[in-house]
Formats: sequence, structure tokens, C-alpha cells
Amino acid sequence: MGGIQARMEEALARLMPRPAIAPERLHEAMRYAALEGGKRVRPLLVFAAGELSRAPAARLEVAAAAVELIHAYSLAHDDLPCMDDDVLRRGKPTVHVEYDQATALLVGDALQSLAFQLLAEHRLADEPKTQLEMVRVLAAAAGSRGMAGGQQLDLEATGKALSLPELEFMHIHKTGALVRAAVLLGAMCGEPLAPEARAGLDRYAKCVGLAFQVVDDLLDAEASTATLGKTAGKDSKQGKPTYVSALGTERSRELAEELRGDAHAALAGFGAGGRRLGELADFIVLRKF
Amino acid sequence: MGGIQARMEEALARLMPRPAIAPERLHEAMRYAALEGGKRVRPLLVFAAGELSRAPAARLEVAAAAVELIHAYSLAHDDLPCMDDDVLRRGKPTVHVEYDQATALLVGDALQSLAFQLLAEHRLADEPKTQLEMVRVLAAAAGSRGMAGGQQLDLEATGKALSLPELEFMHIHKTGALVRAAVLLGAMCGEPLAPEARAGLDRYAKCVGLAFQVVDDLLDAEASTATLGKTAGKDSKQGKPTYVSALGTERSRELAEELRGDAHAALAGFGAGGRRLGELADFIVLRKF
Repeated sequence: MGGIQARMEEALARLMPRPAIAPERLHEAMRYAALEGGKRVRPLLVFAAGELSRAPAARLEVAAAAVELIHAYSLAHDDLPCMDDDVLRRGKPTVHVEYDQATALLVGDALQSLAFQLLAEHRLADEPKTQLEMVRVLAAAAGSRGMAGGQQLDLEATGKALSLPELEFMHIHKTGALVRAAVLLGAMCGEPLAPEARAGLDRYAKCVGLAFQVVDDLLDAEASTATLGKTAGKDSKQGKPTYVSALGTERSRELAEELRGDAHAALAGFGAGGRRLGELADFIVLRKF
Repeated sequence: MGGIQARMEEALARLMPRPAIAPERLHEAMRYAALEGGKRVRPLLVFAAGELSRAPAARLEVAAAAVELIHAYSLAHDDLPCMDDDVLRRGKPTVHVEYDQATALLVGDALQSLAFQLLAEHRLADEPKTQLEMVRVLAAAAGSRGMAGGQQLDLEATGKALSLPELEFMHIHKTGALVRAAVLLGAMCGEPLAPEARAGLDRYAKCVGLAFQVVDDLLDAEASTATLGKTAGKDSKQGKPTYVSALGTERSRELAEELRGDAHAALAGFGAGGRRLGELADFIVLRKF
């Protein structure tokens, strides 16, 4: 995994506008928001799914960068005072603290545009039609019926107790949609998959997307700010419903384990091609940060 | 023009998610931001350029909607307190006043995603390759080297006196990039244009993009809030450099006229196919709101 993470860092640095290009401050802040950061879970999923369809690494790099830029944009916006109002992310001051709010807003806006530009200007599939489908998948995952919609549901849920189906509905949007897009985009960079394979991948993506969120909630409740590189204990302080508040720690831990099992089961038909996806499901559930 | 404006209203209403779909509040606010508003200059440009390449109206509608959604997203974000902090737009309270800041932020984010989704999921060109190029053109126009970059330059220019080339550089990004994208996308929905025709269109787009901004500056200085439907006199109050502050009213008016002449000259080779584009250049320069 470390190899892919280093490769992604290099790819993102190469695919983003240099800070010497005007407007310099915006380009510098975009790089601040997207480089040197995070576990790169979504890029790892792109590469792992690409192994399944024997996709060339050069294509996977670009698709992974596009997904990661959408993720980075959402973090820059979520940390703004009118949203989660956070000052620490990936062990560094958040974008609006390091720069200013207006710049953080534009950073997010411009990172989103860049994600779609990358998907359109590099050759990522044998057929341009497949590549258009990649644009559609990423746009739908990012938009009001995907990630941005999940953020809205999250806003509205603050201070409320959600039922488990409501909590799941929120997270399928907020985290799950982009995780699913990462898996689908990775696979689409390679040879076409049979419909059953695609359905299996979709089941896998749904399980790891939810598992990721359950573990995030557990870590937010249990780990320290230093370990996480972002403010810990924030969810309960902000009155946000989480798996931990809905189910308790023990049952949340069991749920994460069940989802890990389901993710592996969804890969059953793939043989060796699904090895990395399986490892990632383990990493997502067993991580400590 | 009224016919196309009404058609666009109907198309946008149809192409945006219904407010009955969750998250309802976000979908309602997205419609508030994008419907019932504005002169629809960019859609008019899409349709006028489409006349040149004999593009089907059903395609132009979708391309125009994509461009207009990018414009609507930029307005929702520009009006936020951390940017221009405005309360009135198109004669109505701005999105964050009518809803709240977090929702206005997500509205802009989700409108941007939807623009790219529309370009990818409808058939807009004979070749998927052309359609991918449309995604690329719109993404580049919206991003850090286009509109979002222009906003950043605008932020940095506040309180400064810019030279005329600096002012032009800012506006080529802030307004010009999306105007150019509107013209190119409209043309790309139809028959392929010869390279000289594309170059002519590009010159036309550059001229009307700048003319649009010069006239905007004149109207901001001269017209009333009631006529504009947005806060008048804002530029000088905020210490923003404008064509009026750089050149004075008279010379700005002359410049707009020169650009109108240049726009018509760029259309010289097009004959009857360029008629609507010529009318639009007149509308853009001679408008009173």
C-alpha cells in the first residue's frame, strides 16, 4: 500500500497546476489541501479494483487522482466555519485557517472542476463512451444524491437521534457514494467486467463504504487527536448521531466485523484478482487511525 | 430571445432533481438558486452558437443547462459572507439568506457536480469523444485557470488599482472563460466546424465576454438596485477595480462599443448562421440591466 500511496502523492503533484501559475495563491492552497495527506483510501480502492480488470497503472493514477480531488474538496468545504468549523486536518491547520475562508471556498470549487477535467483530458479507457460513463459515475457520486446530499443530511441530523436505517441512508450518501465510485472507476479503467462481476464489486463497495464509516465513528469516540491528525471526540461534542451513539461501542465493533465478512464474501467469485480488495477491507476495518 | 429563456426555465426545472427527492431541503435550495432567474445570457450564447453548427435544440438545452448551473453555483458561492457578502440577487434574497450558509455552500457544490453529470448522461454529440471534449472545456472554464481563478484574482484585487492588462486578465478568467465555454459547447452540439470557423468563434467569444464585463461595470456604477435586481454601486463600495474606475465612464462606454464591433467582425465569415450571435453581442452591450 505504501508504494501506491507514494505513487499517488507524485501523481497528484504532477496533475495539479503548479503554484508558479496564476492565480498563484489559489494554486498553492489547492496543493496544500490535496497533497501530503491522508490515508488515500479511495485511491487504494481505485488501484485494487483496477487489479481486477487488469487496468494499466497510468490510467488508474489519473482516475484515483480525480476521486481524491473530490474527497479533498469536500474536506476543505466541510472544515469551514459555516459547516463543521474545524481547525485541524491531517495534523495541519485546515485550509481556511492556513489561508482564509474565501480561498478555502475557491480551493474546494476548483478542486472539483479539476477532478472532472482530469477524467476528460486523459485517456482512461479504450472507448470514449466508457470514459463518459466514468464522468457520470463520479458526478453522481459527488452531487446532491451522493456526497453533497450526505453532507446536507448530516447537517440536518445534528442534535437528533437517527434510527439505524436513517443513519445508514445518511452514510450511504456521505461516504458510501464516493467509495463506490472509486471502486467502479478503478474497474472501468481496464477490461469490461461481466454484469455479475460488476454486481459483486458493487456489493463489496457498499460494505466497505459503510464499514469505513462505522470504524470512523469508533475511532472518533476512542482515539486521540494526535493519532487521528484531526480533532477527536468531535461527533459527540457536536451532537451528531453516529454508529457509536446509536449502537454502542461493542455492537458497532461487531457491525464493522460483519461488514468486513460481507465484503470478503462479495469477492468470492473473483479469485486472485480480488486479493487486494480483500486486503483493503481488512485495512479499513482494522486500522487504528 | 424570450422563447429560449422560457425554454431554458422549463429545461432546468426538468433536468434538476425534484424537491420531493431526499435530501429535500438541498434540492429545494438548488432550484431556488437556479430557477426563475437572470438574463440567461450564457444559455442564449449556447443556442446562438448552435445555430451556426445546425445543432439540435434538444442537445443545446442540456449543454445550456450545464453552463447555467455552473454560473448559478458561482453566484451562490460569491454571495456568501466570506466572499461578496450580498443579500440580494435577481430581486430575491440570496441563497444563504433564504436558507443558511451551509446549505448555500452545498447548493453550489451540488450544482457544479450536476453540470458535469448532465454533460455525461445525455447524448449531446454524434461522437462520445466530442462529448468528452465538452466536459473538458467546461471543467477548464470553471476551474482555477478559469472562473474560480478569476474569483481569486478578484479577491486579491480588492482595494488595489489594477492596470488595464491586469483588469483584462482578471475578467478573462472571471467572466470570459465561461462565456467562451458557452459558445464552444453550443457549437460542439452540432456539425464539426472548420478550424478557421472555430477560431472566429473564439475571437467572438473573447470580445463578448469582455464587453459583458465592461457593461456590467457601467451598470453597477450607473443603474439602480431595483433595475439590476442585485445591489448596485457595490464595486466602488467594496473598493474593487472596475473598467469604470480604470477608464472612466465615457472611455468604458467606447470600449464596449469597440468590442461590439470586434465581435461582429469576428462573425464576418459566417453569413446567416452568425445572425443570432450578432444580435446577442448587441443585446449584451446595449442592455440596461
